[in-house]
Amino acid sequence: MTLVWMVPVTGLAAVLFALWLAYDVLRRDTGTAAMQEISGMIFEGAMAFLSRQYRTIGALAIVTAVAVTVIVGSISEGVKPVVFQNGQVSFGATEIVGRWEEGLLTGIAFLVGAFCSGLAGYIGMFIAVRSNVRTAAAAQKSLKDAVTVSLRGGAVSGFLVVALSLLGVSGIFLVYSRVLDNPPEIVPFLIIGFGFGASFVALFAQLGGGIYTKAADVGADLVGKVEAGIPEDDPRNAAVVADLVGDNVGDCAGRGADLFESMSAENIGAMILGVAIFSVTRDIEWIMFPLVLRSFGIIATIVGLTSVPFFTDGDAKSKQDPMTPLNYGYYVVSALSVVGLFIATKVMLGDAWYWFFFCGLIGIGTGIAFVYITQYYTAGAWRPVQEIAQASRTGPATNIIIGTAVGFETTALTAISIGVALVGAFALGSQADIDPAIPGFTTGIFGTAVATMGMLMSAAYILSMDTFGPITDNAGGITEMSGAPESAREITDKLDAVGNTTKALTKGYAVASAGLAAFLLFSAYLDKVKERLGAPLTAELPIDLARVDVFVGGLLGVMLVFLFSSLAIRAVGNAAGAIIEEVRRQFRADPGIMAGTSRPDYGRAVDITARAALREMVLPGVLAVGMPIAVGLIFRFTRNDTVIIDNVAYDHASGWLAVAGMLIIGTIGGIMMATVLNNGGGAWDNAKKFIESGGLKDENGVPLGKGSEAHKAAVVGDTVGDPFKDTAGPSLHVLIKLLATITLVLAPLFISK
Amino acid sequence: MTLVWMVPVTGLAAVLFALWLAYDVLRRDTGTAAMQEISGMIFEGAMAFLSRQYRTIGALAIVTAVAVTVIVGSISEGVKPVVFQNGQVSFGATEIVGRWEEGLLTGIAFLVGAFCSGLAGYIGMFIAVRSNVRTAAAAQKSLKDAVTVSLRGGAVSGFLVVALSLLGVSGIFLVYSRVLDNPPEIVPFLIIGFGFGASFVALFAQLGGGIYTKAADVGADLVGKVEAGIPEDDPRNAAVVADLVGDNVGDCAGRGADLFESMSAENIGAMILGVAIFSVTRDIEWIMFPLVLRSFGIIATIVGLTSVPFFTDGDAKSKQDPMTPLNYGYYVVSALSVVGLFIATKVMLGDAWYWFFFCGLIGIGTGIAFVYITQYYTAGAWRPVQEIAQASRTGPATNIIIGTAVGFETTALTAISIGVALVGAFALGSQADIDPAIPGFTTGIFGTAVATMGMLMSAAYILSMDTFGPITDNAGGITEMSGAPESAREITDKLDAVGNTTKALTKGYAVASAGLAAFLLFSAYLDKVKERLGAPLTAELPIDLARVDVFVGGLLGVMLVFLFSSLAIRAVGNAAGAIIEEVRRQFRADPGIMAGTSRPDYGRAVDITARAALREMVLPGVLAVGMPIAVGLIFRFTRNDTVIIDNVAYDHASGWLAVAGMLIIGTIGGIMMATVLNNGGGAWDNAKKFIESGGLKDENGVPLGKGSEAHKAAVVGDTVGDPFKDTAGPSLHVLIKLLATITLVLAPLFISK
Repeated sequence: MTLVWMVPVTGLAAVLFALWLAYDVLRRDTGTAAMQEISGMIFEGAMAFLSRQYRTIGALAIVTAVAVTVIVGSISEGVKPVVFQNGQVSFGATEIVGRWEEGLLTGIAFLVGAFCSGLAGYIGMFIAVRSNVRTAAAAQKSLKDAVTVSLRGGAVSGFLVVALSLLGVSGIFLVYSRVLDNPPEIVPFLIIGFGFGASFVALFAQLGGGIYTKAADVGADLVGKVEAGIPEDDPRNAAVVADLVGDNVGDCAGRGADLFESMSAENIGAMILGVAIFSVTRDIEWIMFPLVLRSFGIIATIVGLTSVPFFTDGDAKSKQDPMTPLNYGYYVVSALSVVGLFIATKVMLGDAWYWFFFCGLIGIGTGIAFVYITQYYTAGAWRPVQEIAQASRTGPATNIIIGTAVGFETTALTAISIGVALVGAFALGSQADIDPAIPGFTTGIFGTAVATMGMLMSAAYILSMDTFGPITDNAGGITEMSGAPESAREITDKLDAVGNTTKALTKGYAVASAGLAAFLLFSAYLDKVKERLGAPLTAELPIDLARVDVFVGGLLGVMLVFLFSSLAIRAVGNAAGAIIEEVRRQFRADPGIMAGTSRPDYGRAVDITARAALREMVLPGVLAVGMPIAVGLIFRFTRNDTVIIDNVAYDHASGWLAVAGMLIIGTIGGIMMATVLNNGGGAWDNAKKFIESGGLKDENGVPLGKGSEAHKAAVVGDTVGDPFKDTAGPSLHVLIKLLATITLVLAPLFISK
Repeated sequence: MTLVWMVPVTGLAAVLFALWLAYDVLRRDTGTAAMQEISGMIFEGAMAFLSRQYRTIGALAIVTAVAVTVIVGSISEGVKPVVFQNGQVSFGATEIVGRWEEGLLTGIAFLVGAFCSGLAGYIGMFIAVRSNVRTAAAAQKSLKDAVTVSLRGGAVSGFLVVALSLLGVSGIFLVYSRVLDNPPEIVPFLIIGFGFGASFVALFAQLGGGIYTKAADVGADLVGKVEAGIPEDDPRNAAVVADLVGDNVGDCAGRGADLFESMSAENIGAMILGVAIFSVTRDIEWIMFPLVLRSFGIIATIVGLTSVPFFTDGDAKSKQDPMTPLNYGYYVVSALSVVGLFIATKVMLGDAWYWFFFCGLIGIGTGIAFVYITQYYTAGAWRPVQEIAQASRTGPATNIIIGTAVGFETTALTAISIGVALVGAFALGSQADIDPAIPGFTTGIFGTAVATMGMLMSAAYILSMDTFGPITDNAGGITEMSGAPESAREITDKLDAVGNTTKALTKGYAVASAGLAAFLLFSAYLDKVKERLGAPLTAELPIDLARVDVFVGGLLGVMLVFLFSSLAIRAVGNAAGAIIEEVRRQFRADPGIMAGTSRPDYGRAVDITARAALREMVLPGVLAVGMPIAVGLIFRFTRNDTVIIDNVAYDHASGWLAVAGMLIIGTIGGIMMATVLNNGGGAWDNAKKFIESGGLKDENGVPLGKGSEAHKAAVVGDTVGDPFKDTAGPSLHVLIKLLATITLVLAPLFISK
């Protein structure tokens, strides 16, 4: 059990570090009274949205937990021990966990997962919306202060997410194995409910948050800039606070839940894959390894994050790009992750450890690659964004056409990077010769799991940079609305631009981790099917693409991705309609608002948008949860097909085969679509910013800035890209993982023997 | 050999019928001198483009034919006879066709396929661009005359495509089996080059034509309507003839090549599947059945097409919707297809014929379903288009957002229809008990082939309606430019609107047929792999989705779909830039053009666009051809994996496995994306038309017609949709089928033993 002690220690250390960061941020200067007033409204709005949202999600989660308990209990045949005999890993004949006990443990794990995810999101956001005004105040002093405050505020969220995921999974593992006295190899199958709970919260947090944030943004723009002709962030616009609240609920709470889920599902999936190796070697390290590696990631991130201020220029007149210190910090995290990876693999993974060390390196490298790929496609310094800006000169249509082409193009490097990482990690892993009874296929898949873990070692840092985004965006808004001096605005504008980049690259990172994790979660699903069929874990269970049920399942999976995106995009439009109506109503009801003599009712606008967003998230949410279940049940009951595993024929295979096709092909479609939507949207956004900063020039070299026809066209592209990159795209990450966890938990439902 | 005599007879009958239609169209009134002049320019432009395009394609095809001959010859191990022994279908030990002979026969088949496709496209278009002025002249008389001329003109293309595909496949089959004296069961493997040749021409015809047509359209609009402020189809715009030419090269020649390929590839794929059954029953009907069913389709279509004038209102003041008689004609075709299907299955397919009869019915039903699904999503009478029109009231951004949401949404019914058809046809087919040695899997796949054939029975009719589109569009342009009377314009406007619908539904039909055909072509690919491995045809060859090479192949397949679409869309922008420059140059060089005193140089504009379009089609074309080959070779040489078939282990499986994943998952992605692009584009187009026709009203019930802000927003959507629906979407149909035929021909390249 070497190194396993690190898991609770680093988990608690991360929580303490987050608390210290929170303390450090909260004790800082909160600026002028005007700034505090605005910040107070944002805080109130954000908390009001969050409590409304978590009440809704909580109610849904409790109903679902009961449903999961009942369904799993009634379809379960109990959990059987994993046995190793004659060189084959299989399941014993008599169960050691009863069917209703399995149902109950799964349901409890679901609730714990949902609760931990919600808690991390809530506290993280609580601090984020108190960091914004402090960042705005710090910006009046220096860039260094502003970067420090905003990054630390964001890091509270980053560390809590990682720590609660680690403590949650390891805690429930401890309770289920030690307290309830279950053999360690069956526990990963009992705690998959944790991953499902995390996905469930993430789906609704990301969907609801994504719909809210863009409804408020689009609504505020349309009714303010377009209809009333007042500038962005103008205090006369009743929707402006809702807009600032929105940035937090989408990027902070939503993305936090997204990555919380990635890590939890990936931990549990990797532990399930470790079971196959453990049952041969009887060496618990294979099951605990994912958690230990995460612990090293926490240490690396604490050091990396603390190092950022040292790289930041203290000179008040400095022209330093704030992205530079953030990048340096990331290098520190990456370098220390490599060291941690080396120690963990060498100490824990036996003689063939170095193969897995290389797999982990691939993962760390993939993370870095995605950070750069995303920057290339979404930052103004490179061809893609500039091309869109150029196309804006011939109007909105060409802006949209070229933006779409750029979005589609981004799939190329994404797919190649994920493909190279998977093939490489699998090839290296399959070389590891642990025991003759463990086939190269099993160690290869474990290799892809190590790559995913390696990549996610830096998750807390990436999340800190992500939450940095809404904090600096809000700081900019507060500075603007409170009439702060020009020098402070310059700093917050700079930070805001960097925040756009960090938000975009977190999405790229989330997509890549979802892509890598998909493969191992799929393998875990197949293990679960084998468990239910009573087939050996080491047997090959081919999901044959030439079968009509697998093909049609896949077709429906890709269709789900498109239909879900369609509903998510449409939801933004519908919810935006609600806030537009409200702002118009306020303008009509009180002419003093436009004149600047009376204050609009910001709270009401927040509340109406929140209600609309939560209403709109129901339909896509139900589709995401319901469709895999429906497909599995329809195929199970209408088609009777046979598959042969190790020369034994199993009837009624269509249900779980169609679901397998849907899961994996839907995931491929989802990864690609999320890439298109995230990067396309990011590129449109920054093409507009590129024009605003005077980057686009006419034939005579005169900049075509704000107010030019080209800028108007770019605004159209930006507006189109908003629901793509902040609602549909991120929600697709969650959809992919929800598909994996829901099918993992409910696999027995699609199998009849 | 009952009924097989029908194949040459109906093939020749179709050619004769096409010639009679051509004669009938050409002898009709060609209208006023002004009309003839414009039509003459369109004719010249179209022929100039076509000869330039076919010269390019021809040169590429000859090079490719040589390459195919050399590659296939050098990787071949010769073709071995199919033998039936001990209840298993396998391949003999000694080849009966030498390796270089196989290469040569494949290369020749490639050239014949390419030639037949080109010939059908050329003649069809020759007549189409002579039908437009006759339709314009007929419109001055009555709706009935105009419908008759335009539909007959379009039918020349429709019948030639079907006839040349049928005669080509059956002719080459006859020569290779009778003249060269090869056993009939190996010939389908020798003529797969025909399908590849057809795909090859289709790819470039559709890509080049699609780029040309939209570059001219977008260019003409931007430089005319937007920059110079002159109306659409204004003779002062030098791009206007290029635009009219473009409609023909995209919808007539391009779509003709697309469906030529569908039918050829589907015929050959179905024949390969028939081989497995033939080798047991020794009953040649199983191989020839696809061709006979096509013959019945021709008869049904001739009758249906001839019946259309009887349903058309002869009254000159009639308010009849021209879609009505076209729909009636389609019902006639469908009803007669059912009769033909009944006869063909009953006479040819033994005692279990009725199972396949029902499979065919499913196919015919799917065809009808797609006609209605497409109409629902792209015609102004229903929710989707009206919703986009409504969204235009808040500007171009919301128009694009809702249009995208509608486009995504259309995947739902598409996927469900294809899924139901495949599962249904497979389930019915697998019930057919032909011989105990033939597994239900084999007859099930044959069932899906029969469904595809059933659907394609009406192909000639659908294609006639499709080519009706550009003819009526051109007739409208000629009427407009020649200043014909208002009554004639009313008729051509009506026909033009119907033409938009028929063009859209042909695309839906093409997607559905590609979806159904994909499954059987994939099975043919697996048979080809088995042939090469020497494995039994009846053995299961699982393409296991849990394998990393299959997964990554699939990921790259979906990526190919996006990247190819990106390049196609971008190509339109680039080529449009060329024509815009040219029109601007002409306006500058001769101010008399704008004043209306001198005529612009239409020919030069056509020529410049043609050259730009052909240049732009190279990159996406090379990507489409090169990527499957590259993936197959990279995986073949870098990864050494083993699969087990019937207890025999085969090494080095990664190459053909990755290609299999790419093929089938890429196809799923391609079908869905093509649906999104085609229907989204169609919906945007008709949302604009809906507003122009006064369908959109403000709060007070006043129509927001041309010139309103909503209309301007809708024009943006229409412009965005143009390259989606006319370039990228249709090119994806061809990409899907090219993937299938190229991998079928080059399968041995990805296998080392």
